[in-house]
Amino acid sequence: MAHPRVAVVGATGAVGRAMVSILEEREFPLGGFVPMASARSSGKRVRFRGENHEVRVVDDGWFDGIDLALVSVGGEVSKKILPPAAAAGTVCIDNSSAWRMDPQVPLVVPEINSDAVWAHKGIVANANCTAITALMAVAPLHRAFGLRSVITSSYQSVSGAGWKGVLELAEQVEKLHGQEEDLARPDPAALPFGDVFGRTIAYNVVPRVETFDPEGSGFTTEELKMGWEFRKILGLPELEVAATAVRVPVPVGHSVSIHARFGQRVSADEARRVLAEAHGVRVVDDPATDTFPTPLEAAGTDEILVGRIRQPEGDPNALLLFSVGDNLRKGAALNAVQIAELLVR
Amino acid sequence: MAHPRVAVVGATGAVGRAMVSILEEREFPLGGFVPMASARSSGKRVRFRGENHEVRVVDDGWFDGIDLALVSVGGEVSKKILPPAAAAGTVCIDNSSAWRMDPQVPLVVPEINSDAVWAHKGIVANANCTAITALMAVAPLHRAFGLRSVITSSYQSVSGAGWKGVLELAEQVEKLHGQEEDLARPDPAALPFGDVFGRTIAYNVVPRVETFDPEGSGFTTEELKMGWEFRKILGLPELEVAATAVRVPVPVGHSVSIHARFGQRVSADEARRVLAEAHGVRVVDDPATDTFPTPLEAAGTDEILVGRIRQPEGDPNALLLFSVGDNLRKGAALNAVQIAELLVR
Repeated sequence: MAHPRVAVVGATGAVGRAMVSILEEREFPLGGFVPMASARSSGKRVRFRGENHEVRVVDDGWFDGIDLALVSVGGEVSKKILPPAAAAGTVCIDNSSAWRMDPQVPLVVPEINSDAVWAHKGIVANANCTAITALMAVAPLHRAFGLRSVITSSYQSVSGAGWKGVLELAEQVEKLHGQEEDLARPDPAALPFGDVFGRTIAYNVVPRVETFDPEGSGFTTEELKMGWEFRKILGLPELEVAATAVRVPVPVGHSVSIHARFGQRVSADEARRVLAEAHGVRVVDDPATDTFPTPLEAAGTDEILVGRIRQPEGDPNALLLFSVGDNLRKGAALNAVQIAELLVR
Repeated sequence: MAHPRVAVVGATGAVGRAMVSILEEREFPLGGFVPMASARSSGKRVRFRGENHEVRVVDDGWFDGIDLALVSVGGEVSKKILPPAAAAGTVCIDNSSAWRMDPQVPLVVPEINSDAVWAHKGIVANANCTAITALMAVAPLHRAFGLRSVITSSYQSVSGAGWKGVLELAEQVEKLHGQEEDLARPDPAALPFGDVFGRTIAYNVVPRVETFDPEGSGFTTEELKMGWEFRKILGLPELEVAATAVRVPVPVGHSVSIHARFGQRVSADEARRVLAEAHGVRVVDDPATDTFPTPLEAAGTDEILVGRIRQPEGDPNALLLFSVGDNLRKGAALNAVQIAELLVR
């Protein structure tokens, strides 16, 4: 598939916009570019390689003349619009969670399991943003030491819920800024409430991302995905994963605190050496110079930053890590473009 | 010690102010009240039970005529001013980390190990705010099921560093508010930098609380305290603790994501029953009604809120929890006043 005609579907959203700029930055070899979105974005234009492209509304035959689609729309829409496209020969790289656990659909993080992409039947799934941020740190260590279990707690930015998440945070900060000291004893009735997060997200943390498992496990769907996607991408169906997903008032950049246990003894120094060699990872870790990664440093960059690498006392097979990445780029758009690059190579 | 003459040392700080209001709220039976602070607060007044009290500057004989001192000053100052006071018969309840690991000094969370207080030799230590927040949830489960290991990731508010932390957050928000969308690609040179956190804390998370262990373990002092204080307070010298401490842009309210493993099988329902009976704990946990605790709900309250109670798949001896508390109240001032209540009872 050389020089494919490419559609970015959902081109006006947070991830879609990042897809467009990453295609441009990486000089993706395309034979045509069509930004698409829902009727709400009708009339909008998207700038790509110095030209304005009118956004085309996604209709029944949207995939006509499109070889490759980078899709970032909701899971429900994705379930409807991808099967006819795939059947007609358009290869779709989908950013939603709709297809990830379908055994017919490869779930790909190119640095980790690029070979899986070739089994595709028209749809390739992009992994979850938090899962990618954690996996980029854990997968190289798994290859070196054999992973046995993972316990994660996340610090997920509001753009993980799209630009509307960023706007909701900004609106709430507007209302609460200047009252920071009063928030030592807040009046619950006066706290701003938003539709996106269902709680005040400004000056708060919200330990519920997406919705609770309808099957009553007590986990959220975001937390369950961590287990499902770790197992599928690493090819470890029995891997123990215990995830806690928490939203924090950060615009862009997901962080994950990771406890990983391996089948053999490991050390922080060995882990640092392994991660220093890993593609797409930058080790940002030096206590002597107060060096560690934060989301504001990861925002706008392509690499996953890994720091705070250390070994818990009394557990020679375990490591603690703190992994940080741009959830719109490596956590979504960049990973999708990298999958596209595999396909056109 | 009925109706002691009480000093609050550090009375103008964040924790000191909370100590004063909690003494008032709880109608602590005192025979005298003296607010004290460093020379910087000279001339300030503190309102207590309807009267203004001039702040007395801490000098060499500060403890003269004082039966009981609630002390919230830095560890270095505490090391200097407490020994002569204790030697002269003033019982000091200290909020710093200076004395916690001294084998001569009881480290007390009244709901957990109140009996330990009687071994004091003039100094009783208040536990770390994050340790208290986590211990209040874990200790009742330990009594029921026998704790084996704990892995924690914290979401610590800026007031943990005192009011100056709250002011630094507010200043940085002032500079960055309105640019939330630009923070998708921040200009590192334009980010506000503060002395308290050594990084931009607004719209960011900072995975380094206090300073790195000078012995090179890779842990921070805040993280090491979790292990030391869990082991001392629970009386479990061999307990495995792996802590990650992270600062978040929240004014008041510390949260801790906890993975606890026990010596026997447990279930989320049993844990909920145990915690519902525990003093000082409120279970805030109902996925069916989207109920879980957040720091804005905990701020200004006395209880530790515990939610997100669930069991990781494949690990019948383990539980996940999310524990949230007011770091100035139960995490510091309230716990100190409760220790004082034990002593005067």
